Amino acid sequence: MIDELDKQVIEMLWRLNQQTLHRMQEPFQVATKTNYNDLVTSVDKQNEREIDGYLRQIDPGCQILSEEGFGSQGITDPAGHLWIVDPIDGTLNFVKQRDHFGIMLALYVDGQPTLGYIMDCMNKRLYHGGPGRGVFVNDQRLSAPADLSLREGLVSISSPLILGNVNQLPTVAKAASGLRMYGSAAMEMIGMLTGELVGYVSHLHPWDLAAGRVMAEELGLVVKSIDGTTPDVLSSNLVLIATKQVSREIAELTD
Amino acid sequence: MIDELDKQVIEMLWRLNQQTLHRMQEPFQVATKTNYNDLVTSVDKQNEREIDGYLRQIDPGCQILSEEGFGSQGITDPAGHLWIVDPIDGTLNFVKQRDHFGIMLALYVDGQPTLGYIMDCMNKRLYHGGPGRGVFVNDQRLSAPADLSLREGLVSISSPLILGNVNQLPTVAKAASGLRMYGSAAMEMIGMLTGELVGYVSHLHPWDLAAGRVMAEELGLVVKSIDGTTPDVLSSNLVLIATKQVSREIAELTD
Repeated sequence: MIDELDKQVIEMLWRLNQQTLHRMQEPFQVATKTNYNDLVTSVDKQNEREIDGYLRQIDPGCQILSEEGFGSQGITDPAGHLWIVDPIDGTLNFVKQRDHFGIMLALYVDGQPTLGYIMDCMNKRLYHGGPGRGVFVNDQRLSAPADLSLREGLVSISSPLILGNVNQLPTVAKAASGLRMYGSAAMEMIGMLTGELVGYVSHLHPWDLAAGRVMAEELGLVVKSIDGTTPDVLSSNLVLIATKQVSREIAELTD
Repeated sequence: MIDELDKQVIEMLWRLNQQTLHRMQEPFQVATKTNYNDLVTSVDKQNEREIDGYLRQIDPGCQILSEEGFGSQGITDPAGHLWIVDPIDGTLNFVKQRDHFGIMLALYVDGQPTLGYIMDCMNKRLYHGGPGRGVFVNDQRLSAPADLSLREGLVSISSPLILGNVNQLPTVAKAASGLRMYGSAAMEMIGMLTGELVGYVSHLHPWDLAAGRVMAEELGLVVKSIDGTTPDVLSSNLVLIATKQVSREIAELTD
């Protein structure tokens, strides 16, 4: 059952990516949500509608938690099949850069991470995997990132956390070899999966975290709330994804 | 003469990029320079030697200012043909990410910007151009980026300037639609040329700035020191590359 769903979702994501790149070249509508740089486009909405319809077709009776649609308010219990969907992650990059955005999708079964997908749309690379399945970029299996320290690697910490001096995170940035900001959880998660980053800290909604978490955990990376607890699948969390060493270092620096 | 040099340098850069990608797959040496995250590799040095040898062959009598070799101490007068070379820009990304680095090269004639080249190595895209020549990515001409405001666009400000709260630059970041950090002047300059960024502020050495400056000015972008003066070709400068609107806004915010 899960294997069949996996196969169907991978096929759907390749079709959707082609459509997304096509829609990006056509005129599309942009609207603001909570403020002037919290954007949603007609492409986000079209993608969401299509993913939603497809999932209900291949997995009848599932629950779907999706960025632009239902929000988490409708779902209070992650029992059964829960799909978590970000139809365009990095919408600001999508609009302003036409690059550096992704599509993210995850399946949690009874609250447990089961399948994760991140499509790097412009580079046509699909990261996918799950517990016991390994993590792949397209057909190539990724090896577990080396357990490096802050000083040995690059970190990404989202700009509000740095500019707002939240939880001593600027100190974490200074202790690292360098600080990077890509502006899309999909892009930063890919950096973690490939070992290009050794740590990523951001305030993440369920749809920003769900897919990356499945794959990061399978690769032996630590995924936790900054207070040390396991992130709740249905809530927003200030989250850390990191190598084991960096996770320990950040816990000390942010105490 | 300039047209012929242009043609020869473009051919050389494509050959060099192929070699660079090949050398990245082989074991290479990494050494530190001023501190643990100021790196130089054997690939930087090989590239520099080859660029140097080639330029002296096609442009006898030229001066060459190059990151890993001579430094600026040897050259005090930009008279005649001055080539400014960064054999690998973003060496930390090259080492830690195997991505997000570039090769940069520029020709200044009697101190005047004349030809500029940035090779985005992993994406195999060569940005090149000069005054009156237009700016191209491979064979495709770039149009001038729209004159957007801070609020309408994304900026890149290097992490030491943000973490050190230099010149109220965190305030500039907060006024923008978003903050990005790619960790390579080559990558950020490409962001400016393509309009993916509306402003970039960083402390830049001559080899970090020279190529991008030639092309940014040709596209109508402002390139200046943060104090408003024209950057000196032979010195390091705290430099701003921006749309006209963003340049005015930053001048007000950092007064």
